Amino acid sequence: MSSSAPTDRLFLDDLYVGQRFRSATHIIDEAQIKAFAAQFDPQPFHTDEETAKDTFFKGLAASGWHTAAITMRLNVETGLPLAGGIIGAGGELNWPAPTCPGDMLHVESEVVEITPSRSKPDRGIAVIVSRTVNQRGEVVQILKAKLVVPRGAAS
Amino acid sequence: MSSSAPTDRLFLDDLYVGQRFRSATHIIDEAQIKAFAAQFDPQPFHTDEETAKDTFFKGLAASGWHTAAITMRLNVETGLPLAGGIIGAGGELNWPAPTCPGDMLHVESEVVEITPSRSKPDRGIAVIVSRTVNQRGEVVQILKAKLVVPRGAAS
Repeated sequence: MSSSAPTDRLFLDDLYVGQRFRSATHIIDEAQIKAFAAQFDPQPFHTDEETAKDTFFKGLAASGWHTAAITMRLNVETGLPLAGGIIGAGGELNWPAPTCPGDMLHVESEVVEITPSRSKPDRGIAVIVSRTVNQRGEVVQILKAKLVVPRGAAS
Repeated sequence: MSSSAPTDRLFLDDLYVGQRFRSATHIIDEAQIKAFAAQFDPQPFHTDEETAKDTFFKGLAASGWHTAAITMRLNVETGLPLAGGIIGAGGELNWPAPTCPGDMLHVESEVVEITPSRSKPDRGIAVIVSRTVNQRGEVVQILKAKLVVPRGAAS
Protein backbone atom coordinates (compact mmCIF):
# COMPACT_ATOMS: atom_id res chain seq x y z
CA MET A 1 0.00 0.00 0.00
CA SER A 2 1.44 3.33 -1.04
CA SER A 3 1.23 6.45 1.07
CA SER A 4 0.03 8.21 -2.07
CA ALA A 5 -3.14 6.11 -2.29
CA PRO A 6 -6.03 8.54 -1.78
CA THR A 7 -7.47 6.49 1.10
CA ASP A 8 -4.29 6.89 3.12
CA ARG A 9 -4.31 10.64 2.83
CA LEU A 10 -5.13 12.92 5.70
CA PHE A 11 -7.77 15.63 5.84
CA LEU A 12 -7.59 18.60 8.18
CA ASP A 13 -9.76 16.72 10.68
CA ASP A 14 -7.28 13.83 10.73
CA LEU A 15 -4.42 16.10 11.82
CA TYR A 16 -3.49 16.88 15.41
CA VAL A 17 -0.91 19.17 17.00
CA GLY A 18 2.24 17.20 17.71
CA GLN A 19 1.64 14.72 14.88
CA ARG A 20 4.91 13.76 13.22
CA PHE A 21 5.97 12.50 9.81
CA ARG A 22 9.26 11.38 8.35
CA SER A 23 10.15 11.20 4.67
CA ALA A 24 12.39 8.86 2.71
CA THR A 25 15.91 10.07 1.88
CA HIS A 26 17.52 11.80 -1.07
CA ILE A 27 21.23 11.92 -1.83
CA ILE A 28 22.37 15.15 -3.46
CA ASP A 29 25.50 15.13 -5.60
CA GLU A 30 27.70 17.69 -7.31
CA ALA A 31 25.97 17.26 -10.68
CA GLN A 32 22.54 18.01 -9.18
CA ILE A 33 23.88 21.04 -7.32
CA LYS A 34 25.48 22.47 -10.46
CA ALA A 35 22.48 21.73 -12.69
CA PHE A 36 20.03 23.48 -10.34
CA ALA A 37 22.40 26.41 -9.88
CA ALA A 38 22.97 26.82 -13.61
CA GLN A 39 19.22 27.13 -14.09
CA PHE A 40 18.15 29.12 -11.04
CA ASP A 41 21.02 30.35 -8.89
CA PRO A 42 24.14 30.88 -11.01
CA GLN A 43 26.56 32.01 -8.30
CA PRO A 44 30.11 30.64 -8.06
CA PHE A 45 29.64 28.98 -4.65
CA HIS A 46 26.91 26.84 -6.29
CA THR A 47 28.52 26.24 -9.68
CA ASP A 48 32.29 25.81 -9.29
CA GLU A 49 34.12 24.07 -6.45
CA GLU A 50 37.42 25.87 -7.03
CA THR A 51 35.92 29.37 -6.86
CA ALA A 52 33.65 28.23 -4.04
CA LYS A 53 36.65 27.61 -1.76
CA ASP A 54 37.25 31.35 -1.45
CA THR A 55 33.64 32.23 -0.64
CA PHE A 56 31.36 32.37 2.39
CA PHE A 57 30.65 28.63 2.02
CA LYS A 58 34.35 27.52 1.78
CA GLY A 59 33.33 24.96 -0.84
CA LEU A 60 30.56 23.92 -3.21
CA ALA A 61 27.13 24.25 -1.58
CA ALA A 62 23.63 23.75 -2.92
CA SER A 63 21.40 26.74 -3.47
CA GLY A 64 19.01 27.11 -0.54
CA TRP A 65 16.20 27.00 -3.11
CA HIS A 66 17.52 23.62 -4.24
CA THR A 67 17.34 22.35 -0.66
CA ALA A 68 13.80 23.74 -0.51
CA ALA A 69 12.85 22.03 -3.78
CA ILE A 70 14.26 18.67 -2.63
CA THR A 71 12.39 19.06 0.64
CA MET A 72 9.19 19.59 -1.34
CA ARG A 73 9.83 16.48 -3.43
CA LEU A 74 10.44 14.39 -0.31
CA ASN A 75 7.31 15.73 1.37
CA VAL A 76 5.15 15.24 -1.74
CA GLU A 77 6.27 11.65 -2.28
CA THR A 78 6.74 10.23 1.20
CA GLY A 79 6.76 12.93 3.86
CA LEU A 80 3.31 14.49 4.15
CA PRO A 81 0.35 12.39 2.99
CA LEU A 82 -2.20 15.22 2.89
CA ALA A 83 -5.53 14.97 1.10
CA GLY A 84 -5.60 17.43 -1.77
CA GLY A 85 -1.80 17.47 -1.95
CA ILE A 86 0.65 19.92 -0.45
CA ILE A 87 -0.55 23.44 -1.17
CA GLY A 88 1.44 26.17 0.55
CA ALA A 89 0.16 29.67 1.16
CA GLY A 90 3.56 30.68 2.44
CA GLY A 91 5.84 30.21 5.39
CA GLU A 92 9.09 30.94 7.15
CA LEU A 93 12.31 29.51 5.84
CA ASN A 94 15.69 29.17 7.51
CA TRP A 95 18.90 27.62 6.28
CA PRO A 96 21.03 27.06 9.40
CA ALA A 97 23.68 25.01 7.54
CA PRO A 98 24.61 24.44 3.89
CA THR A 99 23.78 21.36 1.84
CA CYS A 100 26.93 19.91 0.26
CA PRO A 101 27.75 17.25 -2.35
CA GLY A 102 27.14 13.74 -1.01
CA ASP A 103 24.70 14.81 1.67
CA MET A 104 21.79 12.45 2.31
CA LEU A 105 18.71 14.42 3.25
CA HIS A 106 15.41 13.47 4.83
CA VAL A 107 12.57 15.55 6.19
CA GLU A 108 11.02 15.41 9.66
CA SER A 109 7.72 17.24 9.93
CA GLU A 110 5.46 18.15 12.83
CA VAL A 111 2.00 19.66 12.91
CA VAL A 112 2.10 22.74 15.15
CA GLU A 113 -1.22 24.50 14.48
CA ILE A 114 -4.58 23.66 12.91
CA THR A 115 -7.07 26.39 12.01
CA PRO A 116 -10.32 25.64 10.19
CA SER A 117 -11.25 28.45 7.80
CA ARG A 118 -14.10 30.64 9.05
CA SER A 119 -15.12 31.75 5.55
CA LYS A 120 -14.57 28.46 3.69
CA PRO A 121 -16.04 25.50 5.60
CA ASP A 122 -14.44 22.93 3.26
CA ARG A 123 -10.86 23.72 4.22
CA GLY A 124 -8.44 25.08 6.78
CA ILE A 125 -4.82 25.95 7.39
CA ALA A 126 -2.35 23.56 9.00
CA VAL A 127 0.97 24.99 10.10
CA ILE A 128 3.58 22.29 9.70
CA VAL A 129 7.27 22.61 10.55
CA SER A 130 9.49 20.56 8.25
CA ARG A 131 13.12 20.11 9.26
CA THR A 132 15.44 18.90 6.51
CA VAL A 133 18.20 16.87 8.11
CA ASN A 134 21.47 15.53 6.70
CA GLN A 135 23.28 12.25 7.42
CA ARG A 136 25.14 13.85 10.34
CA GLY A 137 21.88 14.90 11.99
CA GLU A 138 22.47 18.57 11.12
CA VAL A 139 19.38 20.58 10.25
CA VAL A 140 20.01 22.28 6.88
CA GLN A 141 16.55 23.82 6.49
CA ILE A 142 13.62 24.66 8.73
CA LEU A 143 10.39 25.45 6.93
CA LYS A 144 7.36 26.54 8.91
CA ALA A 145 4.70 26.26 6.22
CA LYS A 146 1.08 27.35 6.14
CA LEU A 147 -0.66 24.63 4.16
CA VAL A 148 -4.19 24.65 2.77
CA VAL A 149 -5.81 21.32 3.75
CA PRO A 150 -9.37 20.17 2.90
CA ARG A 151 -11.75 19.23 5.73
CA GLY A 152 -12.75 15.61 6.11
CA ALA A 153 -15.24 14.30 3.56
CA ALA A 154 -18.78 13.91 4.91
CA SER A 155 -18.85 10.28 3.72
CA MET B 1 28.61 48.03 -18.31
CA SER B 2 27.01 45.01 -16.70
CA SER B 3 25.41 45.09 -13.27
CA SER B 4 27.40 41.94 -12.53
CA ALA B 5 30.75 43.72 -12.82
CA PRO B 6 32.30 43.60 -9.33
CA THR B 7 32.77 47.37 -9.23
CA ASP B 8 29.04 47.94 -9.62
CA ARG B 9 28.19 45.73 -6.70
CA LEU B 10 26.94 47.03 -3.40
CA PHE B 11 28.38 46.41 0.04
CA LEU B 12 26.34 46.66 3.24
CA ASP B 13 27.52 50.25 3.69
CA ASP B 14 26.18 51.15 0.23
CA LEU B 15 22.65 50.06 1.13
CA TYR B 16 19.98 52.28 2.70
CA VAL B 17 16.47 51.63 3.93
CA GLY B 18 13.99 52.39 1.16
CA GLN B 19 16.49 51.61 -1.62
CA ARG B 20 14.74 49.92 -4.53
CA PHE B 21 15.75 47.57 -7.31
CA ARG B 22 13.94 46.11 -10.29
CA SER B 23 14.94 43.01 -12.23
CA ALA B 24 14.58 42.10 -15.88
CA THR B 25 11.66 39.84 -16.86
CA HIS B 26 11.21 36.11 -17.31
CA ILE B 27 8.39 34.44 -19.22
CA ILE B 28 7.30 31.11 -17.79
CA ASP B 29 5.66 28.56 -20.05
CA GLU B 30 3.90 25.22 -19.66
CA ALA B 31 7.04 23.23 -20.48
CA GLN B 32 9.05 24.96 -17.75
CA ILE B 33 6.24 24.45 -15.23
CA LYS B 34 5.95 20.74 -15.99
CA ALA B 35 9.73 20.17 -16.05
CA PHE B 36 10.24 21.77 -12.63
CA ALA B 37 7.23 19.94 -11.20
CA ALA B 38 8.36 16.58 -12.56
CA GLN B 39 11.67 17.03 -10.76
CA PHE B 40 10.65 18.70 -7.50
CA ASP B 41 6.88 18.99 -7.02
CA PRO B 42 5.07 16.18 -8.84
CA GLN B 43 1.49 17.10 -8.02
CA PRO B 44 -1.27 17.08 -10.68
CA PHE B 45 -1.98 20.82 -10.52
CA HIS B 46 1.65 21.38 -11.56
CA THR B 47 2.02 18.54 -14.08
CA ASP B 48 -1.24 18.07 -16.02
CA GLU B 49 -3.63 20.79 -17.20
CA GLU B 50 -6.65 18.48 -17.47
CA THR B 51 -6.38 17.16 -13.93
CA ALA B 52 -5.46 20.65 -12.72
CA LYS B 53 -8.90 22.00 -13.73
CA ASP B 54 -10.55 20.10 -10.90
CA THR B 55 -8.12 21.23 -8.23
CA PHE B 56 -7.62 24.20 -5.90
CA PHE B 57 -5.84 26.08 -8.71
CA LYS B 58 -8.54 25.49 -11.42
CA GLY B 59 -5.80 25.03 -13.99
CA LEU B 60 -2.08 24.43 -14.43
CA ALA B 61 -0.02 26.48 -11.98
CA ALA B 62 3.69 26.61 -11.27
CA SER B 63 5.03 25.18 -8.04
CA GLY B 64 5.58 27.97 -5.54
CA TRP B 65 9.17 26.72 -5.29
CA HIS B 66 9.50 27.26 -9.04
CA THR B 67 8.34 30.86 -8.63
CA ALA B 68 10.88 31.19 -5.81
CA ALA B 69 13.65 29.73 -7.99
CA ILE B 70 12.83 32.07 -10.90
CA THR B 71 12.80 34.99 -8.48
CA MET B 72 16.28 33.98 -7.34
CA ARG B 73 17.55 33.79 -10.91
CA LEU B 74 16.14 37.24 -11.69
CA ASN B 75 17.66 38.71 -8.53
CA VAL B 76 21.05 37.07 -9.11
CA GLU B 77 21.31 38.23 -12.70
CA THR B 78 19.70 41.67 -12.75
CA GLY B 79 17.72 42.36 -9.59
CA LEU B 80 20.08 42.67 -6.64
CA PRO B 81 23.69 43.66 -7.37
CA LEU B 82 25.13 42.76 -3.97
CA ALA B 83 28.84 42.36 -3.32
CA GLY B 84 29.57 38.76 -2.39
CA GLY B 85 26.43 37.58 -4.18
CA ILE B 86 23.00 36.81 -2.77
CA ILE B 87 23.41 34.67 0.33
CA GLY B 88 20.20 34.06 2.25
CA ALA B 89 20.04 33.03 5.88
CA GLY B 90 16.30 32.60 5.60
CA GLY B 91 13.15 34.62 5.31
CA GLU B 92 9.40 34.76 5.04
CA LEU B 93 7.66 33.60 1.90
CA ASN B 94 4.11 34.22 0.70
CA TRP B 95 2.39 33.19 -2.49
CA PRO B 96 -0.71 35.41 -2.74
CA ALA B 97 -1.53 34.31 -6.31
CA PRO B 98 -0.49 31.44 -8.58
CA THR B 99 2.00 31.67 -11.44
CA CYS B 100 0.46 30.32 -14.66
CA PRO B 101 1.70 29.43 -18.17
CA GLY B 102 2.51 32.55 -20.18
CA ASP B 103 3.07 34.78 -17.18
CA MET B 104 5.87 37.33 -17.51
CA LEU B 105 7.51 37.86 -14.14
CA HIS B 106 9.82 40.52 -12.79
CA VAL B 107 11.04 41.27 -9.27
CA GLU B 108 10.78 44.54 -7.37
CA SER B 109 12.96 44.67 -4.27
CA GLU B 110 13.27 47.11 -1.40
CA VAL B 111 15.77 47.31 1.45
CA VAL B 112 13.81 47.42 4.72
CA GLU B 113 16.45 46.84 7.41
CA ILE B 114 20.25 46.92 7.70
CA THR B 115 22.03 45.42 10.68
CA PRO B 116 25.83 45.25 10.91
CA SER B 117 26.95 42.10 12.71
CA ARG B 118 28.20 42.68 16.23
CA SER B 119 30.38 39.59 16.30
CA LYS B 120 31.65 39.68 12.69
CA PRO B 121 32.82 43.18 11.71
CA ASP B 122 33.24 42.25 8.03
CA ARG B 123 29.54 41.63 7.36
CA GLY B 124 25.95 42.30 8.31
CA ILE B 125 22.38 41.36 7.55
CA ALA B 126 20.19 43.26 5.09
CA VAL B 127 16.48 42.48 5.13
CA ILE B 128 15.19 42.89 1.60
CA VAL B 129 11.59 42.42 0.49
CA SER B 130 11.33 41.06 -3.06
CA ARG B 131 7.92 41.15 -4.71
CA THR B 132 7.56 38.96 -7.79
CA VAL B 133 5.02 40.59 -10.09
CA ASN B 134 3.29 39.29 -13.23
CA GLN B 135 2.29 41.14 -16.42
CA ARG B 136 -1.06 42.13 -14.88
CA GLY B 137 0.64 43.76 -11.91
CA GLU B 138 -0.42 40.93 -9.57
CA VAL B 139 2.05 39.99 -6.86
CA VAL B 140 2.63 36.23 -7.06
CA GLN B 141 5.31 36.02 -4.37
CA ILE B 142 6.52 38.15 -1.50
CA LEU B 143 9.87 37.16 -0.04
CA LYS B 144 11.23 38.98 2.98
CA ALA B 145 14.79 37.69 2.96
CA LYS B 146 17.60 38.01 5.48
CA LEU B 147 20.72 38.35 3.35
CA VAL B 148 24.33 38.18 4.47
CA VAL B 149 26.15 41.16 2.93
CA PRO B 150 29.85 42.06 3.33
CA ARG B 151 30.81 45.47 4.73
CA GLY B 152 32.47 47.97 2.41
CA ALA B 153 36.08 47.29 1.56
CA ALA B 154 38.56 49.55 3.36
CA SER B 155 40.19 50.45 0.04
